[in-house]
Amino acid sequence: MNTFDSLWATLEPIGRSSSGGYRRFCWTEPDLELRDWFSAEAEARGLEVVLDRAGNQWAWSSDPDAQPGLVVGSHLDSVPEGGGFDGPLGIASAFAALDVLSDRGFTATKPIGVVNFADEEGARFGIACAGSRLITGALDGDRARVLTDVDGMTLAEAMAWAGLDPSRAGRDDEALRRIDQFVELHVEQGKALVNSDAPVGVASAIWPHGRWRIELPGEANHAGTTLIEDRQDAMLGYASVVLAARAAAVRHGAVATCGKVMVEPNGVNAIPSLVTGWLDARGASAEQVRDIVAEVSEAARSFHGTVTEESWTEETLFEPALRDRLQTALGGAPILGTAAGHDAGILANAGVSSAMVFVRNPTGVSHSPAEFAERDDCLAGVQALARVIEDLAG
Amino acid sequence: MNTFDSLWATLEPIGRSSSGGYRRFCWTEPDLELRDWFSAEAEARGLEVVLDRAGNQWAWSSDPDAQPGLVVGSHLDSVPEGGGFDGPLGIASAFAALDVLSDRGFTATKPIGVVNFADEEGARFGIACAGSRLITGALDGDRARVLTDVDGMTLAEAMAWAGLDPSRAGRDDEALRRIDQFVELHVEQGKALVNSDAPVGVASAIWPHGRWRIELPGEANHAGTTLIEDRQDAMLGYASVVLAARAAAVRHGAVATCGKVMVEPNGVNAIPSLVTGWLDARGASAEQVRDIVAEVSEAARSFHGTVTEESWTEETLFEPALRDRLQTALGGAPILGTAAGHDAGILANAGVSSAMVFVRNPTGVSHSPAEFAERDDCLAGVQALARVIEDLAG
Repeated sequence: MNTFDSLWATLEPIGRSSSGGYRRFCWTEPDLELRDWFSAEAEARGLEVVLDRAGNQWAWSSDPDAQPGLVVGSHLDSVPEGGGFDGPLGIASAFAALDVLSDRGFTATKPIGVVNFADEEGARFGIACAGSRLITGALDGDRARVLTDVDGMTLAEAMAWAGLDPSRAGRDDEALRRIDQFVELHVEQGKALVNSDAPVGVASAIWPHGRWRIELPGEANHAGTTLIEDRQDAMLGYASVVLAARAAAVRHGAVATCGKVMVEPNGVNAIPSLVTGWLDARGASAEQVRDIVAEVSEAARSFHGTVTEESWTEETLFEPALRDRLQTALGGAPILGTAAGHDAGILANAGVSSAMVFVRNPTGVSHSPAEFAERDDCLAGVQALARVIEDLAG
Repeated sequence: MNTFDSLWATLEPIGRSSSGGYRRFCWTEPDLELRDWFSAEAEARGLEVVLDRAGNQWAWSSDPDAQPGLVVGSHLDSVPEGGGFDGPLGIASAFAALDVLSDRGFTATKPIGVVNFADEEGARFGIACAGSRLITGALDGDRARVLTDVDGMTLAEAMAWAGLDPSRAGRDDEALRRIDQFVELHVEQGKALVNSDAPVGVASAIWPHGRWRIELPGEANHAGTTLIEDRQDAMLGYASVVLAARAAAVRHGAVATCGKVMVEPNGVNAIPSLVTGWLDARGASAEQVRDIVAEVSEAARSFHGTVTEESWTEETLFEPALRDRLQTALGGAPILGTAAGHDAGILANAGVSSAMVFVRNPTGVSHSPAEFAERDDCLAGVQALARVIEDLAG
């Protein structure tokens, strides 16, 4: 039976704004609604939901402490005004794949888990993959607890608001020990599968990538009465840094984005006293990215600004043997790299045997309300995931 | 008796943020508190408070419909994280000057009014001097009612929230007929009085000035997976426009500021799909300002962006005879121009006999928590305003 459609239909309205984009930030009302949805779908399938120290949700078919299991899943949160596929497709497909296997009378030789990683996008507290970084120790609990959102609320306060104990957030060896292998299905964020005319593919690697905070100081003053030569206008430094980031990315054959900015006091007739911007930079090699950041830092320094690393992820190479096994199970699906970070990458870098299945994206667009996958390709993804589970846990 | 100190002490805490700056936006809780303060101080002095169609508060000593009166005052609202002097100094000084005159047994030959103009800074709905522009017809009521704040609330909704009838907002000939002359006392926003070593001065003119909205379109997409050549990144166009505005201002010997910006979706890992910025431009001549705006528009167009005028105020020349009379009454106080807009300028441009008294600002800084005037200079301002009232209404 095709349960993907009904799973998708119940997910679709949650956290959608009037523009059609999603605002599913961690530890907010829509997020709690998504987590309730996850628990209800798990329960309906006889899976037991447990939380780890970071609040990630794990739905197990049998006891993973007796024998480590095969985990499938992804995340349910979104970037601001994001699409509906990035994350949720992996979780809806996981439940639907279990339904396909159940219809076939499949019996697993090990526990099967479905995971919902918390705060993959980092849209609220600035650190992507916070849930998987916390349990692997890549993000320290003490550092995480004091991260603040735009309203000044800390991550610790937000977790407590959601009914969790933030003092427990941190490395969680018990949760990691339960994972034998992890396979994350995700909508592709590019057009490699379009170009190779295949509905699904298997990941080879994730580019090294990171986020940096850029702070440019100025001096608040009246926009009319302050002479040009008396101004310390923080917006001018920011504008120069934005252009320097693009020029450096082009020069080094990589990508750099200044997607988020906050201005103080942000008044039409007030000279900006502080502009805080963020740089997202990625490249095929760590050196390319480091070179870009060095040039952006140099540009910021010339305006008395600073550039501070908020997160950094080395290149992730998914385990070649597992990658090849998935490719074989999927009848020779194409293998592709990506510049997007994923929880599967964080787990792989922490030594967990991990792999990814990508579903074709006809436009390549993501992090946008226009993000999309054809229904037939989503169903092909469900079948592919079912085959992978059969292969790895049959 | 010096009542300025106690007036100032009761005003000081209202709408102050933890940083020490003020967030006194029109039709918000702090604004209502300020308006209550105004009504209470007026009542304590036996003045009758009436509202005009725009919600501006007028406190009259006697019936201005029987005989037009001399009005003093300014505004109580602020820019975001503004200072405490820009606006409130003029109203506290007005009440204090009436107290000085009352102690002296002064009897006015015409009604005396104290005014609190609503929304002078335009911090919430984008149009400066909205209260005086509405009653003079410089801002159309229909256009004003649909202005929106960052949360999507309209000016009409905000006025209704504050207990006013927004359908009445518009030109108010009855309110204008009641004004024989208007004198606004204001903290100087520059250092001309420091340079001439005088505690108070008299205004000659206000530079032509305006506000323009700059919209730069982009295409939302993933910050990692989207190739440089496939990007439509709205932030790059914005950065170029900011630098073009500064270059144009320098070239034309005027000032231009990009103080406020809003980004969609404003996510670290999402390419901006829309950047909306605002340009504030002013110059000694209208031609200078128009040249700057033309160059900024040209820069925006090259990124498929648009520049739209939100407000424009021609050069204001205060009535020379009234200006000279104030100068004489104040013992030869210096005469100075300014690049800052004021309600007195809006009234002057509408044919109301208007003048301004400036109080020395030791640093010239305004629209900043660092905005300041020495207490002795504030008291000199009160005495100057009392002399002006004696001269014009004695």
